[in-house]
Amino acid sequence: MSQEKPLILVTNDDGITAPGIRHLVKLMKEIGDVVVVAPDSPQSGMGHAITVENLLYCDPVDLPKNVKHKAYSCSGTPVDCVKIACRKILDRMPDICVSGINHGSNSAINVIYSGTMSAAVEAGTNGIPAIGFSLLDYSWDADFEHTSEYVKSITRSVLKNGLPKGVVLNVNIPKKSEEGIRGMKVCRQAKAHWKEDFINRTNPRGRDYFWPVGEFVNEEKNGKDTDEYALSQGYISIVPVQFDMTAHNAIEGLKAWNIES
Amino acid sequence: MSQEKPLILVTNDDGITAPGIRHLVKLMKEIGDVVVVAPDSPQSGMGHAITVENLLYCDPVDLPKNVKHKAYSCSGTPVDCVKIACRKILDRMPDICVSGINHGSNSAINVIYSGTMSAAVEAGTNGIPAIGFSLLDYSWDADFEHTSEYVKSITRSVLKNGLPKGVVLNVNIPKKSEEGIRGMKVCRQAKAHWKEDFINRTNPRGRDYFWPVGEFVNEEKNGKDTDEYALSQGYISIVPVQFDMTAHNAIEGLKAWNIES
Repeated sequence: MSQEKPLILVTNDDGITAPGIRHLVKLMKEIGDVVVVAPDSPQSGMGHAITVENLLYCDPVDLPKNVKHKAYSCSGTPVDCVKIACRKILDRMPDICVSGINHGSNSAINVIYSGTMSAAVEAGTNGIPAIGFSLLDYSWDADFEHTSEYVKSITRSVLKNGLPKGVVLNVNIPKKSEEGIRGMKVCRQAKAHWKEDFINRTNPRGRDYFWPVGEFVNEEKNGKDTDEYALSQGYISIVPVQFDMTAHNAIEGLKAWNIES
Repeated sequence: MSQEKPLILVTNDDGITAPGIRHLVKLMKEIGDVVVVAPDSPQSGMGHAITVENLLYCDPVDLPKNVKHKAYSCSGTPVDCVKIACRKILDRMPDICVSGINHGSNSAINVIYSGTMSAAVEAGTNGIPAIGFSLLDYSWDADFEHTSEYVKSITRSVLKNGLPKGVVLNVNIPKKSEEGIRGMKVCRQAKAHWKEDFINRTNPRGRDYFWPVGEFVNEEKNGKDTDEYALSQGYISIVPVQFDMTAHNAIEGLKAWNIES
């Protein structure tokens, strides 16, 4: 990179019109050359879904002439956006991929449901340093201003230091508050799960349907090295995330079952 | 369980009418009481997607009177199926959740795109022992007969031994061949990625669209402890999969950036 500006791919899962991605684009333009490839509609909870049996649209967005970045609106998932950006839209692999800023938390087990993080993971599988940013505020008119210095600082750190092969970052940021952000903590993912309820209704034609209503259950409220704890204390959590999902510690135990041959 | 038959939840991502799930149901009925909750349409590549802003249908399937299991067809993703099965359909948590048998491989990095495996992972987050089974044959009329003894053996082993907390199994099975299956190997996930191409076409109204066409790239052809290697040698691969995605080894390196406060 030396003299040249870094090439920054920006995506998200809330869709290209979300205030969170607009804020991220504004920040990234202070750091490098920005290309946005983001879903044309909200894709929250899409996880690592990809389009398999359907076509993809990916159209350039008309931006005012004085705007210095390019943007594309894609009919696919966040993972599709990263794939088509890297293989079809950009002239070269980006120096970094940033995803977000998500409207809502992607801490703990949320990482596996999150389209925001899956976009970052997809970039990671292609050897691109990547960060998913999420704000603990689901509202569409969430205030992102207090995130700015931290988002830029983490992005610059990754551009400077790189990331280990097979690792991307999951960054969660407390909601704006009077106390402000206390700082940043490198954490592990808290053990947690979602406990759903399904509200039963009947449609106008008499057929039953269900609305899923989830409750987040943190299984380790006292683990002080977890993302949930850091966030609860007013810190930004930074979790290094891998996509080798092998439970290496479990291999020996399974071998002891003597099912191998 | 002792005298009682185990309660087995069966799901998949190819949809409830797929031959792979029919074969799995047949095998599971030799082991326990079976309830099927599976998508009403193909959901390949859905990853860990969940339904967030939409309703879910989940209707009982009319089965012949002499059939001893129950089946439900769900409009959601594989993960939705597991959630609604556990929280709304079953009277109690199942003793095991089996997903598949998938038409096509879910080895290596495919684990993160796979609806089959995401269903198993979702069960795992709820503390249910879970296995995803996949056959290395994409065709709808794939022959599943040679998988039977192995699928039953692995399922019985899991029912007997349990699985460590936070671990589910990703089982991939070679396509039927004259040589037959050589045995089973406990493996780690091979490092790999997908390299896409996007075929450009124009729709009848003049708008460009793209067809994604992926090429699987195995990055470590010589790693003899990987699932890809075992499969290439005619063995069934069994990978213990975790959903703590923290790259624990990377935490110290990140702390050395001195971004914490």
